[in-house]
Amino acid sequence: MDDQSPAFTEAQIIARLREVFASTDPRIEVGIGDDAAVVAGEKRQVMTTDMAVEGVHFRTDWSTGFEIGRKVTAANAADILAMGAVADYLLVAVALTPSQKMEWIDDLARGIKFEADLAGLKVIGGDISRSEKVVISMAAVGHCKEAITRDGAKVGDGIYLSSLTGWSAAGFALLQSQTLPTGQAHSIALREFKSPTIDYGFDTSKATALCDVSDSIVEQAGQIAKASQVALNFDKELFSRSEEFVDLKSLADELKVDVWDWIFGGGEDHVLLATGVDLPGLSIGQVTAGEGVFGIPLSVADKAWRHFS
Amino acid sequence: MDDQSPAFTEAQIIARLREVFASTDPRIEVGIGDDAAVVAGEKRQVMTTDMAVEGVHFRTDWSTGFEIGRKVTAANAADILAMGAVADYLLVAVALTPSQKMEWIDDLARGIKFEADLAGLKVIGGDISRSEKVVISMAAVGHCKEAITRDGAKVGDGIYLSSLTGWSAAGFALLQSQTLPTGQAHSIALREFKSPTIDYGFDTSKATALCDVSDSIVEQAGQIAKASQVALNFDKELFSRSEEFVDLKSLADELKVDVWDWIFGGGEDHVLLATGVDLPGLSIGQVTAGEGVFGIPLSVADKAWRHFS
Repeated sequence: MDDQSPAFTEAQIIARLREVFASTDPRIEVGIGDDAAVVAGEKRQVMTTDMAVEGVHFRTDWSTGFEIGRKVTAANAADILAMGAVADYLLVAVALTPSQKMEWIDDLARGIKFEADLAGLKVIGGDISRSEKVVISMAAVGHCKEAITRDGAKVGDGIYLSSLTGWSAAGFALLQSQTLPTGQAHSIALREFKSPTIDYGFDTSKATALCDVSDSIVEQAGQIAKASQVALNFDKELFSRSEEFVDLKSLADELKVDVWDWIFGGGEDHVLLATGVDLPGLSIGQVTAGEGVFGIPLSVADKAWRHFS
Repeated sequence: MDDQSPAFTEAQIIARLREVFASTDPRIEVGIGDDAAVVAGEKRQVMTTDMAVEGVHFRTDWSTGFEIGRKVTAANAADILAMGAVADYLLVAVALTPSQKMEWIDDLARGIKFEADLAGLKVIGGDISRSEKVVISMAAVGHCKEAITRDGAKVGDGIYLSSLTGWSAAGFALLQSQTLPTGQAHSIALREFKSPTIDYGFDTSKATALCDVSDSIVEQAGQIAKASQVALNFDKELFSRSEEFVDLKSLADELKVDVWDWIFGGGEDHVLLATGVDLPGLSIGQVTAGEGVFGIPLSVADKAWRHFS
């Protein structure tokens, strides 16, 4: 939520960290760079971590403790889902400010518990520290038979979304605009920004490549295209067939925003983006030979790629 | 490193969280409240998380990125050791400030890698965010045949330390005093504050109860005494037989500090505290019938119990 930019991107940091933490341990099947890591053993385990910082990922004047607890838990649960895995355990580390009230902590914990229950995650441990801003960092562990990574998309696959993206970005825009919320589109947008609905029931068993849209479709599609060495072709017409599209579009028009900026460039929806044949959800495009992402307005790509810094 | 106190203690928060996150899942053998959680499966897994915040747990003007990386990794590794487990995997979430340089990030990563290698931990994933202060949160996973918890101390056991506690507190005192470091005691204290030496080689196989001294002996001993329903009797004379004692005592005298405040009340040494018969390390007392902690000056207990807030 602020615009200070360091001299390097998240991708550059991650590239450097991959070098430093390079390991030849044969148990590590998927290391740094996917939604979660995968380690082999008697069963295949999936592990991920996700941190949220007050003022960057959430604001305590915009969201309740309950909503914030749900949101951070959802981000971690989505990373487990995005490997085609079943969620098992959650560790929660929280830094609290000296002014935090027990009621707020309780509310946060109940939000974490609520979303963890939806996800099938059990909170088994944690750590509490202090800070000038609230920081919540979680680590989630799950298991799967075969992990679905970003590198399996095949020419001829369709591209699917578990539901329409853009609602979280819409909610953020609505809060920033200080528009008084009225009607259905407003309330969906606010709800999805504060605590995104994770598509826990989305059947990923036939997906060839899979990830969750934590940054944006344009970012995540780029990762699948690169890892799978294919081209992802999006069709705006297909998106607009979503039942949710009319509401989202009306809200975008109201706020004088291009709805495609939200759909392709918005992050934190944690909708699942999958490739494969005859998957459930919203059909949004086709995988073809080549490499890259097509059908997304260039202006969106520009915005989304600067999302982190 | 600051003294603002909320209206409740860490113990009160943890008690509340144990209620909220209570689970009857039979796979969870050890939940919230020990050094790490233990879950059953085809093998028994140990999971822990530990967060460190700039200005609270470390200062970037006191420690290098490398030292900070080592320290936070050590805290997580020690929690795995403190369950009698073998370390496997590490997830690292870091919030960086906009002013952080790539050199510093690299230094931090190399410190994490250095300590992880000592511990046998493989860094398999992570998350990067932004914040006004650097925050580092890690989650570590290990495995064991039987977890050694805090509730197994038996009447007749001895009490042991893997090495002398107090050095980290001494280093902190030295930095606060702005004394120009000279001689061996100074350099040990500074080193142990910046990157504590973890006793990775300490054989815990015969320990009946085990934890690492992250808060203080008085705090950790209280936890063992309560969980095991025994009395822990410490003997200062036995501590003073440690080869390290003379140096620590001379430094305490120099800074006009009671050395027992450091030994019993100092935290973040991550030395292992164990009960059992004929364990290696420093013999420091006896387990007897009763309940509570004896042989520690009351003034220390007062200080240590207020450590968190």
